[in-house]
Amino acid sequence: MIRRFVIGTPLDTEAVLHKPEVDQGVLPYFTIEGTTLGMKLAKEDVVYGLGENVRGINKRGWIYESNCTDQPHHHENTRSLYGAHNFFIVKGQEHCFGLFVDTPGRVIFDIGYNRVDDMKVTLENEDYELYLLEEDTPEAIVHAFRELIGQSYVPPKWAFGFGQSRWSYFTAEEVREVARGYRENQIPLDMIYLDIDYMERYKDFTIDREAFPDFEELVAEMKAQGIHLIPIIDGGVKVEEGYDVYEEGVKHHYFCKDVDGDDFTVGVWPGKCHFPDMLNEEAGRWFGRKYKVLMDMGIEGFWNDMNEPAIFYSEKRLKKVFEKVGDFKDINLDLKNFNAFQDLVGNVSNNPEDYKSFYHNYKGQKIRHDKVHNLFGYYMTRSAQEAFEELEPEKRVLLFSRSSYIGMHRYGGIWMGDNKSWWSHLLMNLKMLPSLNMCGFMYTGADVGGFLEDTTEDLLLRWMALGIFMPLFRDHSALNTRRQEAYVVEDKAAVRGIISLRYRLLPYIYSEFMKATLKNTMYARPLGFVWPEDPEAVETEDQLMIGESIMIAPVYEQNKSGRTVYLPEEMKLLRFDGAVLAEEQVLAAGRHYIKVGMNEVVIFVRKGHILPLAQPAQCVAEMDWQDLTLVHFAEEGTSYELYDDDGISRRVSLEGSLRTLTV
Amino acid sequence: MIRRFVIGTPLDTEAVLHKPEVDQGVLPYFTIEGTTLGMKLAKEDVVYGLGENVRGINKRGWIYESNCTDQPHHHENTRSLYGAHNFFIVKGQEHCFGLFVDTPGRVIFDIGYNRVDDMKVTLENEDYELYLLEEDTPEAIVHAFRELIGQSYVPPKWAFGFGQSRWSYFTAEEVREVARGYRENQIPLDMIYLDIDYMERYKDFTIDREAFPDFEELVAEMKAQGIHLIPIIDGGVKVEEGYDVYEEGVKHHYFCKDVDGDDFTVGVWPGKCHFPDMLNEEAGRWFGRKYKVLMDMGIEGFWNDMNEPAIFYSEKRLKKVFEKVGDFKDINLDLKNFNAFQDLVGNVSNNPEDYKSFYHNYKGQKIRHDKVHNLFGYYMTRSAQEAFEELEPEKRVLLFSRSSYIGMHRYGGIWMGDNKSWWSHLLMNLKMLPSLNMCGFMYTGADVGGFLEDTTEDLLLRWMALGIFMPLFRDHSALNTRRQEAYVVEDKAAVRGIISLRYRLLPYIYSEFMKATLKNTMYARPLGFVWPEDPEAVETEDQLMIGESIMIAPVYEQNKSGRTVYLPEEMKLLRFDGAVLAEEQVLAAGRHYIKVGMNEVVIFVRKGHILPLAQPAQCVAEMDWQDLTLVHFAEEGTSYELYDDDGISRRVSLEGSLRTLTV
Repeated sequence: MIRRFVIGTPLDTEAVLHKPEVDQGVLPYFTIEGTTLGMKLAKEDVVYGLGENVRGINKRGWIYESNCTDQPHHHENTRSLYGAHNFFIVKGQEHCFGLFVDTPGRVIFDIGYNRVDDMKVTLENEDYELYLLEEDTPEAIVHAFRELIGQSYVPPKWAFGFGQSRWSYFTAEEVREVARGYRENQIPLDMIYLDIDYMERYKDFTIDREAFPDFEELVAEMKAQGIHLIPIIDGGVKVEEGYDVYEEGVKHHYFCKDVDGDDFTVGVWPGKCHFPDMLNEEAGRWFGRKYKVLMDMGIEGFWNDMNEPAIFYSEKRLKKVFEKVGDFKDINLDLKNFNAFQDLVGNVSNNPEDYKSFYHNYKGQKIRHDKVHNLFGYYMTRSAQEAFEELEPEKRVLLFSRSSYIGMHRYGGIWMGDNKSWWSHLLMNLKMLPSLNMCGFMYTGADVGGFLEDTTEDLLLRWMALGIFMPLFRDHSALNTRRQEAYVVEDKAAVRGIISLRYRLLPYIYSEFMKATLKNTMYARPLGFVWPEDPEAVETEDQLMIGESIMIAPVYEQNKSGRTVYLPEEMKLLRFDGAVLAEEQVLAAGRHYIKVGMNEVVIFVRKGHILPLAQPAQCVAEMDWQDLTLVHFAEEGTSYELYDDDGISRRVSLEGSLRTLTV
Repeated sequence: MIRRFVIGTPLDTEAVLHKPEVDQGVLPYFTIEGTTLGMKLAKEDVVYGLGENVRGINKRGWIYESNCTDQPHHHENTRSLYGAHNFFIVKGQEHCFGLFVDTPGRVIFDIGYNRVDDMKVTLENEDYELYLLEEDTPEAIVHAFRELIGQSYVPPKWAFGFGQSRWSYFTAEEVREVARGYRENQIPLDMIYLDIDYMERYKDFTIDREAFPDFEELVAEMKAQGIHLIPIIDGGVKVEEGYDVYEEGVKHHYFCKDVDGDDFTVGVWPGKCHFPDMLNEEAGRWFGRKYKVLMDMGIEGFWNDMNEPAIFYSEKRLKKVFEKVGDFKDINLDLKNFNAFQDLVGNVSNNPEDYKSFYHNYKGQKIRHDKVHNLFGYYMTRSAQEAFEELEPEKRVLLFSRSSYIGMHRYGGIWMGDNKSWWSHLLMNLKMLPSLNMCGFMYTGADVGGFLEDTTEDLLLRWMALGIFMPLFRDHSALNTRRQEAYVVEDKAAVRGIISLRYRLLPYIYSEFMKATLKNTMYARPLGFVWPEDPEAVETEDQLMIGESIMIAPVYEQNKSGRTVYLPEEMKLLRFDGAVLAEEQVLAAGRHYIKVGMNEVVIFVRKGHILPLAQPAQCVAEMDWQDLTLVHFAEEGTSYELYDDDGISRRVSLEGSLRTLTV
């Protein structure tokens, strides 16, 4: 049952498509004081959800803030990441419900942080909507919620291949080298991502023609090899006379304004920038149609970045810093003064005050940015996808974003944002996936190997062995870090084998992804969703169910040749030596210590289930989706419903796309 | 066998007491190129050691730098912490050796970081000594090494009680409140630490008489309650006319000099400071004797801080920053310029260039600081302890330091430095303990609950349940974080029980600590030391052997009601509900999933071994060391050798201090 409560006169985020009638009753479970919802947590209550956040699948014991933030330096105590996903589920012995807190401003979720048994949800905006969902199980709640918010975005089938990224491949020749690196080493690849340096002075919708003189040819040449180039688009537009996007934006008042009505100026990659007013329908439409510049060059996919929006500095704050810095010149900088001095410069980026100093024109209404902060990336991505629907009415265009809000899941995927080459970020990647699925984000994954800092070969290989189960599977690394393309790995056989296994798994991964997307269910489930009555399964957060047939239990620690795996029921272990199935073994329910070599991937098949495997290929286009091997832990006559389609048409439906495979 | 190699004419760090003859042969195992020692690692080689560092007990897969650094923001990719411990062990199938790289400058240990199978040790100084130790087992190598470097520091017995710290208890009344909080709640306590605010304007060896008007009385009053006050001493001396320490230091040239021969000026807590030249014997003796000011007020213990030495800024660098900052005022701060601007101010602290811009007077020789950087905290602590030996020739004085180098272990303990309220730091605490033992540091532990950032009650309780096994057991938290004294915990019964168990364990902990210290063996051992032929034991890094009788396996993850424990052999599980032994159960070798409540501590007793337990008490002074309960997993007639002494005399010896307890 879904109940909708409206408090005040909230702005419609359009997260929910078909709104139920407003419930005039009292919100159960919670007490409300001001804009804080409070609830006592029982010892055994588990709290799921909150999408892109740190810590466990069970969110208890920490305080999270929905406040889209460019935060690559995140760790276990970080409160806000790139997205804002205000949906959570409380599963206890006495109750099982979900709550979606629909408000575009900041929300604080204290889930037993200040007091172990207290949950407090505090909203910054006074006007908001609440959706309360009551069902028997967390899985049923997720289903009901996903029905409410509408079908998730479907990318082209080729976007399920493997992608290579780096900040940056600086020239066309560098891009060609990457393609050669993969093809010559027979490591599959479907995408190469172009980070900010393909642009001229970081200007959206431009090409640096010195570095990429033959950009259109390069796109075509790569496509002929089965490789798509995916350029980045940033949320800020460079201030530069003569640059059409800048000039049009100024002329038509498409940029966010400061309190005086002037275009608001911030520093981002290019230096001084304006933010397109993504919440202004006309400005959004204008910005979305700009992607055509690149589509006309043959581009079929994009990633939207820096759209929290990230602010290196605001022009006004920077001016103040320069005014004030002299005050510290001739005084004794003791602890207090030194801290003040460091803060002056150190707090210049993403400063909360700056988010209160610019305005949107939303349906003719002037709205201060912080009130709608969490919608910026959502509306940027929505504008783009709505433009794509006009420009490419038949064909899926790949699109994913860094910042997001629930509702954006209908228009694009997300990647899990800038991360680091940390083992703890590998594990966070695993835990984030089901939480994102709960909130509608299906096409997602983390930067394998880690974006910032230098990766090590063992970390990269172990992360690959998890990444092959992520719908969005790409390797990405930052400026001044060591190279981490698969072909630079010493143990090429291992990395080739693991990525090849991804391609062998693709019919299953795509099938499970599409069925979950079309049925509004989950692609990746916590064990607690599948075995909610098994307390040990509920606490197992380093394993996942991927689709209906398989469980994964990756190794996520260094210098480990194996790990303990919990089987809630009898399962069949499949050991892959790279892409080759090397062992099948039925294991009893319980805990098992399983060895996993650096070249290996171990998968557990549920009883009564089938895992279809394709032959390896160098890219999705070359795959044979017909000639499948059915590995299984099932009786004769058991069947699997394989979803398949042409992989590119926007019209997707279970009808006509299911094929029954029987053992 | 120990072999000593001398390259060039190194400065004597005095880490090694009795040096063997110089070996004229060639260093085996390694190739030497310039100042880099290189070695191929076999797949199964395990590398132990390196003392205070991040990551695993097996140090493979990362790059570490011995470069004492004030780094509270450390995480899995941090290269340098507060100490420099250049001793490691390589245990393979073909070889088992240890190497001590004795040099006071920076050393980089690449243990399979750049290439999985390469180890490279790179020294900044060209003159150095190497000690190669070859024995059959890692444990034998540690023993030989510890014999070489001399007996570790022994603190008073009361220092094995529990201590409460905070930055800061600002007044005498606040200190009394803490004592009351413990005593009224019947939670044991032996020490309260005084952080920097007990001083007048952060001046070493002064008391803020406004906040602590009756300091001497306070000390006596606390002592009457069995509580010792432990003040902090910082590595920098405030520049202030009329302040005797400053004036004497200037007059006698006891401070480090800059290149022009002027006293080198840096910013630390008080603002402008000079560093006492700890390497200058006369200056060190002068500084060490200054502690007498506080000892005369009844103080019996100290902690030395900021002695890496930490530099907030150097006067010269700060001047340059103010000169250059204007350059950024009127240019477009794009990515590159903005980064340069941020770096200008952001890199002002602990800047490597500053460590190259001041000088020591070491035995009449002028030595640039960076060449001997890792000795500063060592010599500061040594100077203090040498003064204590004069001032209190009979009585042990508590002393521990943040920065350290091997050799300092003879003069004081260390705490593991400023950490955070992170679950990952709890686990790091566990892994660091045996590595520190290998390098001679016995009296050590981490700030329980975490120093920086807000702790949560579950983290604090789980960390307490580990902390009770650390020789140095204190709760410490930083300015502007929430209170984390044990008596503010909601579940007082749980925290009281766990800390009380510490006191029940004290006869065992003190006995094992003292025997290990006097025999040059380890108090805490990795499982791989005890069962080197069991590969699963070798890989188990989240359990420890504490002394000869028990193994611990703490819960270090949130929202977990238990964990998997690996038993290399049959053991007896002891379950404590707080201080009360609630369950004894013999478990077979292998993996077990063990439930552990938030109020519980689970200990595993080795077969043939005994765990003596005392009755709980409110402080060490009140304990009865005679009335012991012998819990055991042993046949009748098995005995345990209990070490005990008066707990305060400097003269310690096994002889006359052992008592046989038989079951």
